[in-house]
Parts: sequence; structure tokens; C-alpha cells
Amino acid sequence: MTNENNRDRESGLALVPKYDSNGLITAVVTDDSSGALLMVAFMDAQALELTLETGVAHFYSRSRQSLWKKGETSGNVLDVVEVLIDCDQDALWIKAKPAGPTCHTGAKSCFYRKINNGRLESIG
Amino acid sequence: MTNENNRDRESGLALVPKYDSNGLITAVVTDDSSGALLMVAFMDAQALELTLETGVAHFYSRSRQSLWKKGETSGNVLDVVEVLIDCDQDALWIKAKPAGPTCHTGAKSCFYRKINNGRLESIG
Repeated sequence: MTNENNRDRESGLALVPKYDSNGLITAVVTDDSSGALLMVAFMDAQALELTLETGVAHFYSRSRQSLWKKGETSGNVLDVVEVLIDCDQDALWIKAKPAGPTCHTGAKSCFYRKINNGRLESIG
Repeated sequence: MTNENNRDRESGLALVPKYDSNGLITAVVTDDSSGALLMVAFMDAQALELTLETGVAHFYSRSRQSLWKKGETSGNVLDVVEVLIDCDQDALWIKAKPAGPTCHTGAKSCFYRKINNGRLESIG
């Protein structure tokens, strides 16, 4: 990639996601109401397209190596309010309204522990 | 990894970051005051250790393939308030106080454009 391409990607208004060598882009989901970070996952081009088209968050599961509509089985879908992209277009910020707990553990957010002196501590 | 290891990782209080095949973990930084998403980057084990030890965010630059103390040249360091980790310990949430604009473009946040009908639109 040339420097010119990089500048276009940063200052331009064309959507040119920069997928990694596995064809993935990082997607960060926050709760549109509380602002809390709910989860971090990956999208491939298809997942991003479906997310934008349907207004419901889709991801790519690296462990299952397949498209994944979040909440398809649990019902805890993420209704997308807004999608932002970062300077070099290799990360997405999904602002969403969660239909239920986002984490598969039943927690509201996947981030339910903080690091304290090299150990984890439950929060909330 | 066995299912038992996975359960420990999710419910336990031991810090066992799950680095990817490149030895990296995703790190999401939000502004501790406003809650806004500032940037998304990667840490290797050394960057995480230095972040926890010094209280200043360090990352691993994939393009430069080296440790990167954010703000080392610009002065726009990120003072860490709290570090959370997600259920499967493959993503970190850094709550920080930014000393200046976080984005190298001069923007407060790297997320200064939203996707609208397949194009980008400046916000803020």
C-alpha cells in the first residue's frame, strides 16, 4: 500500500475496510444507551455487509470458522444504531441496542472482570 | 485447549491472556471521563506487562513490528485508569485518561467517521 492510498483511507469518505491476512476486521460493540463496552469480535466482508443491510450485528466466528448472527439461537441480538470506522479503516465501532445479555455466560457485557495486581477481580 | 481450560478462563480469577497465533491480544481504549472509544490496537505480552507496570498504555505495532509506547514522540500518552478483560481473555478494555488527541491525525478519537449508505461521513 502506498502512502497516498493510506492518506485516502484516512481522510477520504470512501468505505475501504482494511481486512487482515485472514480477511477479518475487528469490531467493537458498545451499548448505545449506557456507552459500556459489550464485546469485541471480528467481521469478514460478508458479516459487515449483512450487518449494514439488516441492522442486526453479524460476525465471523474464528473458532467455528463461519458467519455468525449474534443472538441467532439465544435471541440476544444486537440492533445496530450506528457504525463508525477508525482512521486506517481496520476497526469498526458498532453502537447497538442489545436485546438481552451480550455475553454467552449470561453477563450483560463480556468484560466482567478487571485486572488487579496480576489477578482478576469480578466487577459489577 | 480443553473445555475445562476454557471454563477456568471464563469463570476463574487467574489472568491467562489468550494471545493469537501472532502473540497478540486486541486492546480497546476508551476515555475514562467521556466513555468514548478512542482507539483499537494490539498488545503482545511485553506491552501488556509494561502497561500494567507503568500505568501508561503500551502496544505492539503490527506495521513496525515493535513495541510502541503510545505518545512517546507526540506526548499524547494514555494514563491507564483500569484494565478489564473479556470472557475468553482474548480482548482487553483499557479505560484511560488521554493527555491529548489520541489519533495520529490530530482527532480526539480514531473513530471520526460513520458509515452511511456505504459511504463515510465525518462526525463531531
